[in-house]
Amino acid sequence: MREQDPPRPAVPPGDLTTAITAPGEELLTLLDRHLPRIRAQAAPNDRDSTFPAETFHGFARDGVLGATVPAELGGMGVSRLHDVAVALLRVAEADASTALALHAQFSRGITLTYEWLHGPPPTRKLAERLLRAMARGEAVIGGAVKDYGREITRLRPDGSGGWLLSGRKTLVTMAPIATHFVVSAQAPAAGGTTLLYAPIVARDTPGLSIVDGWTGLGMRASGTLDVAFDDCPVPAGNLLARGSVGVHSDAVLAGQAVSSVAMLGIYVGVAQAARDLAVDTMARRSATPPAASRTLVAETEARLYALRATASAALVNVDELSPRHDMDPDERGRRMMTPFQCAKVMVNQLAAAVVDDCLTVVGGAAYAAEHPLARLYRDVRAGRFMQPYTYADGVDYLSAQALGLERDNNYVSLRATRPADGR
Amino acid sequence: MREQDPPRPAVPPGDLTTAITAPGEELLTLLDRHLPRIRAQAAPNDRDSTFPAETFHGFARDGVLGATVPAELGGMGVSRLHDVAVALLRVAEADASTALALHAQFSRGITLTYEWLHGPPPTRKLAERLLRAMARGEAVIGGAVKDYGREITRLRPDGSGGWLLSGRKTLVTMAPIATHFVVSAQAPAAGGTTLLYAPIVARDTPGLSIVDGWTGLGMRASGTLDVAFDDCPVPAGNLLARGSVGVHSDAVLAGQAVSSVAMLGIYVGVAQAARDLAVDTMARRSATPPAASRTLVAETEARLYALRATASAALVNVDELSPRHDMDPDERGRRMMTPFQCAKVMVNQLAAAVVDDCLTVVGGAAYAAEHPLARLYRDVRAGRFMQPYTYADGVDYLSAQALGLERDNNYVSLRATRPADGR
Amino acid sequence: MREQDPPRPAVPPGDLTTAITAPGEELLTLLDRHLPRIRAQAAPNDRDSTFPAETFHGFARDGVLGATVPAELGGMGVSRLHDVAVALLRVAEADASTALALHAQFSRGITLTYEWLHGPPPTRKLAERLLRAMARGEAVIGGAVKDYGREITRLRPDGSGGWLLSGRKTLVTMAPIATHFVVSAQAPAAGGTTLLYAPIVARDTPGLSIVDGWTGLGMRASGTLDVAFDDCPVPAGNLLARGSVGVHSDAVLAGQAVSSVAMLGIYVGVAQAARDLAVDTMARRSATPPAASRTLVAETEARLYALRATASAALVNVDELSPRHDMDPDERGRRMMTPFQCAKVMVNQLAAAVVDDCLTVVGGAAYAAEHPLARLYRDVRAGRFMQPYTYADGVDYLSAQALGLERDNNYVSLRATRPADGR
Amino acid sequence: MREQDPPRPAVPPGDLTTAITAPGEELLTLLDRHLPRIRAQAAPNDRDSTFPAETFHGFARDGVLGATVPAELGGMGVSRLHDVAVALLRVAEADASTALALHAQFSRGITLTYEWLHGPPPTRKLAERLLRAMARGEAVIGGAVKDYGREITRLRPDGSGGWLLSGRKTLVTMAPIATHFVVSAQAPAAGGTTLLYAPIVARDTPGLSIVDGWTGLGMRASGTLDVAFDDCPVPAGNLLARGSVGVHSDAVLAGQAVSSVAMLGIYVGVAQAARDLAVDTMARRSATPPAASRTLVAETEARLYALRATASAALVNVDELSPRHDMDPDERGRRMMTPFQCAKVMVNQLAAAVVDDCLTVVGGAAYAAEHPLARLYRDVRAGRFMQPYTYADGVDYLSAQALGLERDNNYVSLRATRPADGR
Repeated sequence: MREQDPPRPAVPPGDLTTAITAPGEELLTLLDRHLPRIRAQAAPNDRDSTFPAETFHGFARDGVLGATVPAELGGMGVSRLHDVAVALLRVAEADASTALALHAQFSRGITLTYEWLHGPPPTRKLAERLLRAMARGEAVIGGAVKDYGREITRLRPDGSGGWLLSGRKTLVTMAPIATHFVVSAQAPAAGGTTLLYAPIVARDTPGLSIVDGWTGLGMRASGTLDVAFDDCPVPAGNLLARGSVGVHSDAVLAGQAVSSVAMLGIYVGVAQAARDLAVDTMARRSATPPAASRTLVAETEARLYALRATASAALVNVDELSPRHDMDPDERGRRMMTPFQCAKVMVNQLAAAVVDDCLTVVGGAAYAAEHPLARLYRDVRAGRFMQPYTYADGVDYLSAQALGLERDNNYVSLRATRPADGR
Repeated sequence: MREQDPPRPAVPPGDLTTAITAPGEELLTLLDRHLPRIRAQAAPNDRDSTFPAETFHGFARDGVLGATVPAELGGMGVSRLHDVAVALLRVAEADASTALALHAQFSRGITLTYEWLHGPPPTRKLAERLLRAMARGEAVIGGAVKDYGREITRLRPDGSGGWLLSGRKTLVTMAPIATHFVVSAQAPAAGGTTLLYAPIVARDTPGLSIVDGWTGLGMRASGTLDVAFDDCPVPAGNLLARGSVGVHSDAVLAGQAVSSVAMLGIYVGVAQAARDLAVDTMARRSATPPAASRTLVAETEARLYALRATASAALVNVDELSPRHDMDPDERGRRMMTPFQCAKVMVNQLAAAVVDDCLTVVGGAAYAAEHPLARLYRDVRAGRFMQPYTYADGVDYLSAQALGLERDNNYVSLRATRPADGR
Repeated sequence: MREQDPPRPAVPPGDLTTAITAPGEELLTLLDRHLPRIRAQAAPNDRDSTFPAETFHGFARDGVLGATVPAELGGMGVSRLHDVAVALLRVAEADASTALALHAQFSRGITLTYEWLHGPPPTRKLAERLLRAMARGEAVIGGAVKDYGREITRLRPDGSGGWLLSGRKTLVTMAPIATHFVVSAQAPAAGGTTLLYAPIVARDTPGLSIVDGWTGLGMRASGTLDVAFDDCPVPAGNLLARGSVGVHSDAVLAGQAVSSVAMLGIYVGVAQAARDLAVDTMARRSATPPAASRTLVAETEARLYALRATASAALVNVDELSPRHDMDPDERGRRMMTPFQCAKVMVNQLAAAVVDDCLTVVGGAAYAAEHPLARLYRDVRAGRFMQPYTYADGVDYLSAQALGLERDNNYVSLRATRPADGR
Repeated sequence: MREQDPPRPAVPPGDLTTAITAPGEELLTLLDRHLPRIRAQAAPNDRDSTFPAETFHGFARDGVLGATVPAELGGMGVSRLHDVAVALLRVAEADASTALALHAQFSRGITLTYEWLHGPPPTRKLAERLLRAMARGEAVIGGAVKDYGREITRLRPDGSGGWLLSGRKTLVTMAPIATHFVVSAQAPAAGGTTLLYAPIVARDTPGLSIVDGWTGLGMRASGTLDVAFDDCPVPAGNLLARGSVGVHSDAVLAGQAVSSVAMLGIYVGVAQAARDLAVDTMARRSATPPAASRTLVAETEARLYALRATASAALVNVDELSPRHDMDPDERGRRMMTPFQCAKVMVNQLAAAVVDDCLTVVGGAAYAAEHPLARLYRDVRAGRFMQPYTYADGVDYLSAQALGLERDNNYVSLRATRPADGR
């Protein structure tokens, strides 16, 4: 924080209402300008499954797409995940889909910054180039993690030091405007082991195609599409190493927590929007509120407070452990992931309960397709499916931690070793 | 039941799997033929908010639309609400929207049969005429209960013994094919009181117009539209009396319970469909089911059993009390309504919990718009908004009954006396 | 049912309020006389962990202890588990501990009647002798199932055709007045298999001792003690065969369901007593009930209705399948056990939720040790620990049934093959 | 904090594991010495309803009873409620009753410090005298808030400038060793208004008597008794003013939040103790943990994290607003009370759910009276009854805040104006 900045509270308020760093606050100010448009377009974009490309062009212009890029590289320098989550919360109150897409870009800035600081030299160079482009609003980098069906996305050597990528990814958010994709892929290695990589592939790479198709129950404006790769050339320098399949390395949990924990802000924002709609509707009614509505409103207030506090605690925890390279890497990974998973389980439960009760409070009007609560009811359900982990994997992880059971906690590796569940 | 029928169990199995009367079983057999088409059209009709008109033409042809019309009037003579609910359950497993629309017609047969048996002479004639037409598949009678916005639907004398109806109704199910509408309306009477009526209005009545517009979060293929009335002429004989506003008559609860309780079958069917999808998906997977999935599947089995048993008990109770004209009418009304409301609260909670857990068990694939679980997740949420009562009114009713508090339990009257909540 | 009996409803009301057979109704009438004393002694017996021996002497005198003994053998001939559960419900409303102890005797009458009808000749003789003694109020037969600690209760041949029993059982209900115990025991057999037996041992058998010690969180007046066996002689004719360890025989589930399902009535009774206390307390207060109390009272009414309906359905199901010896025995076992387990999961959840909410409604006064709700709060928690099954085993069973997974469903066999969990 | 102290984290970890001030940490160190004895005595004291007087004598000797007395007055100077709650949490893990009694003394130190700093001169003197005595371990000051039955505790002038106090208080914690009681009392004032006071009365005052009697469902070793006052003389200077009955002053909420919010730590401690018992028991078992147990353990971890984070956020919030005398006093009161109430609702729900699931995980062994989980199951239930507010009042408060409804939020005043509910 610079000298002339106003003093910030030493203690985050625990409710995700304000940023705790100056860049975080600047980001909120920047976003404020975009919120009216985001809010206005939420309903039509949801109806038509339209990605808010104009909004993202505005983000590019204003530097929002480089919010998590270090200031040295031209970005805004928002480095605390707490502040990233507060920003996503604000956007999600207006439109959760927009927040989900933005989360992908923010997350990329955070993880590429880590590569830039700690990666091997070629990776650093790549990361710097991408980060500078993100800061200029020229690079938009989607994540392509989940394989389509049972087909595994694989890399094979091209014979001249580079690689060829083939496969198909599904549920790639922000795909309509992405300039690059970070792809989870496997490659066989010596000794029968399988290595995990994350190649970064430009959109205009030969063999890459965007496959239209997926429409979601919710999060319909998040630009979530499939991306197919047919022997796409990937230079060796564009590959991030992601460990080996079947090696029980908990060190990787740190990166997985860092890249995903801010999404908690999205679901807090969804719950907050639902609460505000319900309370505003009730307050406008002239009749005395019925007993059930008072009870549900009070429970909603309590749950919303709990989910803000719980998400906030998990975010601050990741922020505190993130620079702790003095720690045992496995221990650090678990200490970042465990509170995140606890918070994720609770946020998914509490946010969904809040939205559901708000529908009940508002009544039949909320059951119309175009009612914002109907959208929130669909959007909030996405939280349970986000990695890491699904609910079932989260239960396995948390109970294994508590009971001292051995387990591969790396969901990317785990998924590579078990039969696909199909779509 | 006819002499040659196979013996039926004296005791309903409490799980809503089979009919307990011969006509009920015949209805199930008839419906079986329609289920494949209903199932196949569920997804596209939901996507496009299209009413399954072809299915209903088939219903008309096969006599399904006269299922609850007495055999003497040409109908199938299904008179037990238990059996009506089992039929709706079967249809809802295939498509909840179709079941919801069919429920309106079945309910109309039951209540018009009551008017035919117990109403004043002109009403009996009207009821007979309509019931015979329903049995022939020529009359399809929608219910138009809820006022649009704050506008109250009113009757005024036309000066020559008849009435003129004006107003607008919303959430009228089965509207695309309805030949008549039973409309909730008010008319001022001598002494400052306001009377409640249910005029039956033919679709081609001058001044009646169908207003397109509503699209739901779920139940999108149920043909739910608005109907507007602009000085529609209503002959005096086409008016069913429905009591006075503000008179605390619990006798009316009997009719309200009879006309609505079978809808419990719809939500049991939705939950059953979700359970089957989840269990089938899990069973197809080669991996050992994770701990969380086993727990959720077991909880789902238990909840599904409880909601079947609870709905069944409430249905059998209404069936038993329905012919009990020896009882005090207020007492009879309450003893029909209270178990129905208990069951409604639980069915809405348990069915929604079942569907939600089934999404979690199936995983991200269930979050696609076209996945049947995504439709069930939206459809199941309608239950809380169905009258009688909304959740808030149900809490007021049940707690007032338990604690001996005085209250107007007639939701139509109650709604007429309190400020509208807007849409 | 005898000719002169008043007609009974063909359909059980689904709410466990009345018996459906004449002997069942007679039992209710008999019990009515005992209820005031049972109710009055509930608090002091709970405080002091005192078994209500006087009440049971009264039961013996009135024939209650032979309620489930066939009329041909001098008993009351209550054969429907539905009616047994209604009787237990009534007693549990007054005192759950008394109901739990009485359940052991009722259950014994049912299972011994089965042995009398279907067992091998020596068993029939034994059963007849015991049943006649139960009818005369002279035999009180406790069940001794759970081993104390890791010590396994075993039978070994005495060399002259009889057996010697050694081990220690815990959680033996009704022990203070039991004249006999049915003991779960193992004996090695040819070929390395282990057979399961249920020897019936008279209290005055040499080597048998009652061990004082256990005091419960609740159910403190149920006379639950430990019983130790030190080379107790058991004649060959006093042994009931119970299958082999590790054989996945689902036929045994029938007997396990029959002997335990009536306990559902106990927890319905506990919930009903809590509800009545809360509603009576609220109704006596002059203030307008607060919103939260109205909501909790309404939820309580709904849950109580659901748990009555669910328990009733499971009971009627067991009653219907019990005589179906035409069915595949494994299939019959599963079809009796599955609904029972579903109902057990729900009853345990809903009854505990009812009691908990009733404490909240009544307020701080309910937190005094001597308040009846405080006792109910402790008593209701016993339900989750009752076999078959514990919650964890119930989840394994129900999910295995749904998903088609192979599993030993016989909890006695299962427990014999896995490491003891200690106390 | 002194110069030489190790640096403390600027950010509380949000999980109530460590103190955030040096005096807070010193208190934890002091308490550590007492924990083994507290833990060892928890079971026998609970069984016999015995107050741990020896433990409190040890607390007196070590200065623990003056922990929240300012260092200037000889105390330890723990001024952050966050740290008070962490201390109570640690004690509650060993024994919740001891923590509850200690909470009364800690709370008194905090509120008397406020009187010492901000009260009128005579009150300051009184407060200083008492605080110095607390620091020396000589003063133990119980709170006597709740009237026994419908009798209102009243002050009347003694004719010579002092007062006479009469009435009876119930649920007075720490009564066996209290040297003084702060009593909630009313006195009529000019103009028909009724004033609220908190006289501080020494135990040896003529007319004061300790009434044995209450035994709790739980918290049985907290020394909770009744105290009766029969014209006890109270000097004018020993009276703290507490506003008027019926004046809707939200300023008083600040003091009520400050004096009660630390109790959240107690219930977090109870939940943590239950979790540790369950996890340790599971980990000792050799068998593979069943699916249900893994699910419940994972849910327990998540809930425990959420309740720690939520309680922590509410505590930090009170600590931050406590010195904000620049704010509007009503606004400050509400902003302290609202998060506290949200946290209280959630902590009571989540802590009870954790304890309940831990019983299920451990199994039947936990149902023995002497098992620590059985004690925790009874202790945790106290939370819902603690003021401010009961659950019903909390729902009224939170919903009124959200919906902008007018209401008397001062529970002491509110209780004085509504009919007593009896015990």
